[in-house]
Amino acid sequence: MAAIQQSLSTSISSSASTFLGQNKLRFRNQNVSMPGKTSGIVRCVATPSTEKTSYKTQVSRNENLAKLQAGYLFPEIARRRSAHMLKHPDAQIISLGIGDTTEPIPEVITSAMAKRAHELSTLNGYSGYGAEQGEKQLRASIASTYYANVGLEENEIFVSDGAKSDISRLQVLFGSNVSMAVQDPSYPAYVDSSVIMGQTGQFQKDVEKYGNIAYMRCTPENGFFPDLSSVPRTDIIFFCSPNNPTGSAASREQLTKLVQFAKDNGSILVYDSAYAMYICDDSPKSIFEIPGAKEVAIEVSSFSKYAGFTGVRLGWTAIPKALLYSDGFPVAKDFNRIVCTSFNGASNIAQAGGLACLSPDGFKAMMDVVGYYKENTQIIMDTFNSLGYKVYGGKNAPYVWVHFPGRSSWEVFSEILEKTHVVTTPGSGFGPGGEGFVRVSAFGHRENVIEACRRFKELYK
Amino acid sequence: MAAIQQSLSTSISSSASTFLGQNKLRFRNQNVSMPGKTSGIVRCVATPSTEKTSYKTQVSRNENLAKLQAGYLFPEIARRRSAHMLKHPDAQIISLGIGDTTEPIPEVITSAMAKRAHELSTLNGYSGYGAEQGEKQLRASIASTYYANVGLEENEIFVSDGAKSDISRLQVLFGSNVSMAVQDPSYPAYVDSSVIMGQTGQFQKDVEKYGNIAYMRCTPENGFFPDLSSVPRTDIIFFCSPNNPTGSAASREQLTKLVQFAKDNGSILVYDSAYAMYICDDSPKSIFEIPGAKEVAIEVSSFSKYAGFTGVRLGWTAIPKALLYSDGFPVAKDFNRIVCTSFNGASNIAQAGGLACLSPDGFKAMMDVVGYYKENTQIIMDTFNSLGYKVYGGKNAPYVWVHFPGRSSWEVFSEILEKTHVVTTPGSGFGPGGEGFVRVSAFGHRENVIEACRRFKELYK
Repeated sequence: MAAIQQSLSTSISSSASTFLGQNKLRFRNQNVSMPGKTSGIVRCVATPSTEKTSYKTQVSRNENLAKLQAGYLFPEIARRRSAHMLKHPDAQIISLGIGDTTEPIPEVITSAMAKRAHELSTLNGYSGYGAEQGEKQLRASIASTYYANVGLEENEIFVSDGAKSDISRLQVLFGSNVSMAVQDPSYPAYVDSSVIMGQTGQFQKDVEKYGNIAYMRCTPENGFFPDLSSVPRTDIIFFCSPNNPTGSAASREQLTKLVQFAKDNGSILVYDSAYAMYICDDSPKSIFEIPGAKEVAIEVSSFSKYAGFTGVRLGWTAIPKALLYSDGFPVAKDFNRIVCTSFNGASNIAQAGGLACLSPDGFKAMMDVVGYYKENTQIIMDTFNSLGYKVYGGKNAPYVWVHFPGRSSWEVFSEILEKTHVVTTPGSGFGPGGEGFVRVSAFGHRENVIEACRRFKELYK
Repeated sequence: MAAIQQSLSTSISSSASTFLGQNKLRFRNQNVSMPGKTSGIVRCVATPSTEKTSYKTQVSRNENLAKLQAGYLFPEIARRRSAHMLKHPDAQIISLGIGDTTEPIPEVITSAMAKRAHELSTLNGYSGYGAEQGEKQLRASIASTYYANVGLEENEIFVSDGAKSDISRLQVLFGSNVSMAVQDPSYPAYVDSSVIMGQTGQFQKDVEKYGNIAYMRCTPENGFFPDLSSVPRTDIIFFCSPNNPTGSAASREQLTKLVQFAKDNGSILVYDSAYAMYICDDSPKSIFEIPGAKEVAIEVSSFSKYAGFTGVRLGWTAIPKALLYSDGFPVAKDFNRIVCTSFNGASNIAQAGGLACLSPDGFKAMMDVVGYYKENTQIIMDTFNSLGYKVYGGKNAPYVWVHFPGRSSWEVFSEILEKTHVVTTPGSGFGPGGEGFVRVSAFGHRENVIEACRRFKELYK
């Protein structure tokens, strides 16, 4: 039942695909009329017989968007899942793909949101525009919960509607003239947002990489930490730990090397700690635990995977005052301007939820949900281990990175979907370094995870 | 009491200013170490005596951000308001400045949000990632409520966290190589986001304009509709009606001319209809009421000023399938990619609120609140009329545009703040065409509006 519900909600998400199909119309008249001249309506005959106007504006398509390959990964997976549903309408599809939380949000958190919603109907409880940077109390609470030991202050925290939005706002902040490095494999929003901002060259099909991006290969051989001696200097380094998709958390020693590398190169490190609360060994939970990081790093984080806020939308970005551009100008000051111009703050109701998450009861409840997903992770790891597959990640992250050496990851994705009706994520969707791997997410109801693992055992026994 | 509460919430909003002040430190060592070399920590002595490290990254500041003048308008007003509060701690400050809604959200709407929040704690009611484009039901409801007569469909609607965010996403969509035109005066986010994306030249202090933007002057003389024969061709035309700040709504005849102008030039019109529900004459409420607009226009809109959602955050952008780039590629297809890469959908709780807004009861309740603000508008208009000032707008918008011929609008702003403790908005903050005007917002509790008007009468009698 729950599996079916999940299916339905995802099929909604691919609603745009229907629309996207329509540009397959072949236009008979491709003439471009000149700017400044009156362009009449030029009629064309579409295939096969629908009549359409073919008026075109004289605005050129943004060439950076034309560089992007296919769709953004996760909508593409949703599309394939919907196609599978059409083909197998009776299948009990289980999604361990998109990395979407499935467990109810603890009541201590939702009741705070409901309370704030009700208060908005009262004269004293109503509030309009909040600070673009987030409510002072929430910023203070994030600072004291996550950064008290490293001395980051409330006014170095910018509350957002989620890490994905902030990654793009950071790209707008940096502009088109920066170079960037990224873990390979990694969460696709780093690369795609860089392409959109025009920081990259064209996609090179032979190597499956964009020009002008340094791909830092992370493999089982190097313990999923890049060989920095082979990484060229770039302005920006995106680094996600625990990593999505490999599930690998960098150690203190590794992060110390990374911070030193950034410092040596005068680079800015954008550190994504969206999964830090899944860490259960002594790997750092924040880049700011590393001495000197405040002078080189920005940290992006999120309530999504902690509190099940993937739909509620709340996150934050920490930019220390000590982080300066080459001319001495504080990075946070420009980011503040971006936030004030391009954003109006996260929803006040979501912010009330964030505050409840960081209360003692809320925090404990969040950690219980994290613990639940970690048990799922163990079940998935045990399953693939028992089948003789090498698995990585899992320990400090809700993702299991399963190795299928020598196989195409899209092919494995399709095989699993076709034969077990389980949605996973093909490793190559995260970069060429993900080829030969499949990411299995531990976000799911327990019974679905167990059932998926039963089907995996049947398929790969 | 209410006035004081408003003051407190705004003082939070300027919390970043404290931080921003700190870059006034003068660094002793401005040497730039070279990329690739190990830069040691360079100590410097800050003024007057605090010791600070002055390590700088080797990343150049985005030159587009350096072009921006001072702060974004509204945080700047909040800053001046806070300074005024410090100077006059006992003053009863009334804000008719920032355009922020003040009246409670009708219960039919907040209870739908509270219900959705509670449901997130249940197994069946929980939902994670929604569609990036917005929930299907809300998109359908927006389409049927606002666009049924013009034939726009659900999949041409993209739900957002507000118009301001979408304006920036549209700028990212268009990229750096487009030229743009804007009403002068207008909502500053159009120009500022254009500057950030690198579409403009430097700010030219003599004319108070950025290079490479066409400012379309809107004055009492031209009925606040630009003389299009003097406007050069640009790729993008931003147009807000009812206009913020002038409060003027363009007529059907004027908008027909505007659409024809866009068509003649092959331009894309970005039409901001955030105040359309304040229209009470027969001015079009949507650009798509104009024949042919679907081939040239995008419409950005918002629940903020209708439902008091300035803090809840919900809006939408309509991009018709028929809108094509010069190569025939659909604009909406690229915007869909932007939305999927840079955004993860509006908060599901806010979307539940949006759906309630568009229910019969919710819609009526929203219109009642709009009606309340419109009564405020009348009070403000009557006041300035009685004092012999020429006022514009007001009829179809919650803004009154008061003419102070020959005077600096910042000077009038300061005079009003200093002598009446009322916060307004200086017209020149909206562009050079706003000089000599002050915008008075009708968003406020009735008793505050009446009290502000009493003080205006005292000051300008």
